[in-house]
Amino acid sequence: MQITAGELSKLLNGTIEGDANVKIHTVAKIEEGITGALSFLANPKYEPYIYETGSSAVLVNNDFKPSQPVKTTLIRVENAYSSFTFLLEKFGNPSHQLKGIEPGSIISEKAKIGNDVYIGGLSYISDNSEIGDNSIIYPQVFIGIGSKIGKNCILYPGVKIYHDCVIGDNCIIHGGTIIGSDGFGFAPQADRSYKKIPQTGNVIIENDVEIGANCTVDRATMGSTIIKQGAKLDNLVQIAHNAELGRHSVMASQSGIAGSGKVGNYVVIGGQVGVGGHIEVADGTQIGGQSGINASIKDPDKKWFGTPAIEYRDSMRALAIHRKLPELLKRIETLEKTLKEK
Amino acid sequence: MQITAGELSKLLNGTIEGDANVKIHTVAKIEEGITGALSFLANPKYEPYIYETGSSAVLVNNDFKPSQPVKTTLIRVENAYSSFTFLLEKFGNPSHQLKGIEPGSIISEKAKIGNDVYIGGLSYISDNSEIGDNSIIYPQVFIGIGSKIGKNCILYPGVKIYHDCVIGDNCIIHGGTIIGSDGFGFAPQADRSYKKIPQTGNVIIENDVEIGANCTVDRATMGSTIIKQGAKLDNLVQIAHNAELGRHSVMASQSGIAGSGKVGNYVVIGGQVGVGGHIEVADGTQIGGQSGINASIKDPDKKWFGTPAIEYRDSMRALAIHRKLPELLKRIETLEKTLKEK
Amino acid sequence: MQITAGELSKLLNGTIEGDANVKIHTVAKIEEGITGALSFLANPKYEPYIYETGSSAVLVNNDFKPSQPVKTTLIRVENAYSSFTFLLEKFGNPSHQLKGIEPGSIISEKAKIGNDVYIGGLSYISDNSEIGDNSIIYPQVFIGIGSKIGKNCILYPGVKIYHDCVIGDNCIIHGGTIIGSDGFGFAPQADRSYKKIPQTGNVIIENDVEIGANCTVDRATMGSTIIKQGAKLDNLVQIAHNAELGRHSVMASQSGIAGSGKVGNYVVIGGQVGVGGHIEVADGTQIGGQSGINASIKDPDKKWFGTPAIEYRDSMRALAIHRKLPELLKRIETLEKTLKEK
Repeated sequence: MQITAGELSKLLNGTIEGDANVKIHTVAKIEEGITGALSFLANPKYEPYIYETGSSAVLVNNDFKPSQPVKTTLIRVENAYSSFTFLLEKFGNPSHQLKGIEPGSIISEKAKIGNDVYIGGLSYISDNSEIGDNSIIYPQVFIGIGSKIGKNCILYPGVKIYHDCVIGDNCIIHGGTIIGSDGFGFAPQADRSYKKIPQTGNVIIENDVEIGANCTVDRATMGSTIIKQGAKLDNLVQIAHNAELGRHSVMASQSGIAGSGKVGNYVVIGGQVGVGGHIEVADGTQIGGQSGINASIKDPDKKWFGTPAIEYRDSMRALAIHRKLPELLKRIETLEKTLKEK
Repeated sequence: MQITAGELSKLLNGTIEGDANVKIHTVAKIEEGITGALSFLANPKYEPYIYETGSSAVLVNNDFKPSQPVKTTLIRVENAYSSFTFLLEKFGNPSHQLKGIEPGSIISEKAKIGNDVYIGGLSYISDNSEIGDNSIIYPQVFIGIGSKIGKNCILYPGVKIYHDCVIGDNCIIHGGTIIGSDGFGFAPQADRSYKKIPQTGNVIIENDVEIGANCTVDRATMGSTIIKQGAKLDNLVQIAHNAELGRHSVMASQSGIAGSGKVGNYVVIGGQVGVGGHIEVADGTQIGGQSGINASIKDPDKKWFGTPAIEYRDSMRALAIHRKLPELLKRIETLEKTLKEK
Repeated sequence: MQITAGELSKLLNGTIEGDANVKIHTVAKIEEGITGALSFLANPKYEPYIYETGSSAVLVNNDFKPSQPVKTTLIRVENAYSSFTFLLEKFGNPSHQLKGIEPGSIISEKAKIGNDVYIGGLSYISDNSEIGDNSIIYPQVFIGIGSKIGKNCILYPGVKIYHDCVIGDNCIIHGGTIIGSDGFGFAPQADRSYKKIPQTGNVIIENDVEIGANCTVDRATMGSTIIKQGAKLDNLVQIAHNAELGRHSVMASQSGIAGSGKVGNYVVIGGQVGVGGHIEVADGTQIGGQSGINASIKDPDKKWFGTPAIEYRDSMRALAIHRKLPELLKRIETLEKTLKEK
């Protein structure tokens, strides 16, 4: 991105105040502005920064009235924040303008490819799979037999989707993530070895889901592992066979849900948290980082912490005393001594 | 899979009772049966479901005697469960019928490829590597120089095997797993920087091992990192350099063994568990989720929990009181007050 | 590697004592020597082993004076340890002798490729990217638009570098690692759904950094996520958006730094540790395995443990008593009973 403030203003149907020829090549927070950067002012509490910002141009709302002289170039628009994110999306990732099917990819004649799709070289699209309109399939992606990818999806390099899985519309899946690998199911035998239980279900990912890099989402033993609409997963997250993650729930990095765990809607799961197998977690639950959930949570909208997790406030109280255990022990010893002497 | 109950019966040497023309296209648990699904009845406690199941056909043992009228089609076989898993394996993964070497793969002329092997497009097979009979190498797999893959193995898309590693027969390795990456070995220098210690060993994976998606198994500094016969690893598991995992041991997702850790046979390791470096874990040990093992476990067949882990029962007792620490503190304060007043 | 001791000696400008024709095909620790292996003796405390080692040849310093007869072949060199690691590096990884651009890779005409570079088949090098002299790009690697890789780097199979990232000189990145994926940033909406915040920054990795297999390093929302000179990451490590890891700091497997966490120089982070968002960790800090850092650490060079972490010594003391909580409870009950009876 190397563009003048004037050109940006035209693109956004804005009006310009100040030097329209100033060159923009990056973005910055208004309080960390540098030459060549574009910033925005939406929240009035940041107004003081606009008088001192180092940014070369700032997007402001049409109704912004400066209380002091402004040195930077202003671009007035209807909604400064929306215009800013519009620009970020437009200029943010140079690959997102790519279209068409690159040579070097392997695409089955039995696959159904939508309109305005990008498929990067070295990707492999299997028989009977489908890719919806406007989706972006980066290089080195694998789509298994019979799997369906919705519209407006982005699959980053190295994503692997096993057979018979279903990905909704507007989903983003980051590099290296594996969808549809076998669930971890083995039947113990009399000789203490294990026999594989075939994993014949699939994975269903609903619309508007984003999944981070190097995650793993196992297919169900039978039926489906489900990630519901609008859920967001950070990197290195594990979703086991037959698990469910509810609508608009988020899971931070390195957390996991074990087999048949059912996590409700609007749940917030911290980093490195583990939710045990066959556990249910109520809507709106918040789970602190590194906690371990080993029993179902039935009360919605509560905060939990610890391994095994208890309610956050109780956990904090217990931990505060835990640190003072050496002192507690001494007080008990003193009591014992005093009592003995009496 | 789209087949009639009659055709299935013939395939299994079974006898049919009811409509032989009913069409089967999926599988379901007997209690969750739907039209078009095949279920099985093996455990007598599930018998009541056979009278109400929605499944279009049910596999039963030859000696099954219904106590009520059955509406679904029955397929009588010698062992309903075995027949069911036979079908799952046969029909479960449509890619497993693929054979031959697809165009778009890069295969060294110095590699030795067995009979009836499948190698998917965009896979890379290096010099002096070997792939045993009947093995399935999905697209986008990498096999390094001199590595050997046994017979009847399945390597899913994106598996990367570095050079000089050995994979036994009947092994399954899921997508994105890295075998043979360098061990994490660095020599601290006087200026507090680190100098890499070359990692010249390899990884040996014995027969019948299954490794989940996006795992990492590092090569040994010298000698071999070893995963023994029949061991099973879930997703995102870390096995460090020179570690050993014993026969028929299992590790749940996001767990790890640090450098030179030696885990015995028949061990069960829960999710997100860490086994420290140079630690030994006795045969038959069970380790609860998120535990940290920082000292060797010498007594076999015991259950452990916590960080650092102690015996499970002791851990549960201590945790039960831990939660009541605020109450304990109050009781101590009361004692102090009472004693002072006496 | 199949070479005689005499040939090795010539290669190292050494002098040989004993059988120069003995064949070497592997390396071993001096105390675990076997026929055909080369060992080295640098640390005098290992001297006793040289008189009994099973190794066929041993590298020793020029000034080594045996106090007993030596049966193995000696190769005298100026610095036995340096010569040993030189050989390991030379012979350790057979792929590292590969040069040139293999057919089957896709390389943009707008990419700038240095001298003596190896690019393996099935790699994808995007527009405006750069690869420095002597770097090794294994098969199936992805380099995004505008990303720059320094000199003497090694990128193992399956590494994916998103657009606009910068990798310094002498860096090693192991298989499956993802650099530059989007930070986990979402703005909560009134209806409890989340709106993606575009991630427009990049990742900067300075010189001499090694990153293990299947790690994830997210790009910054704005600005850069930075891994500083000489830092070393084990496998499955997560570095979130806008995080910083200091010079010569090390992170063991499955650990992570959350968004905007700033970890100082010479820090040692154990396995499965989590460093919270916006946390600062002082130089020289050591963090025990599985700990959770939820508050900034300002004092340098201290050791921490636990979740939430406290100073290591305090943590050990509290944990020692924690295990005895059932006994403590009994002592309190006894006190209460005794006091009541008085």
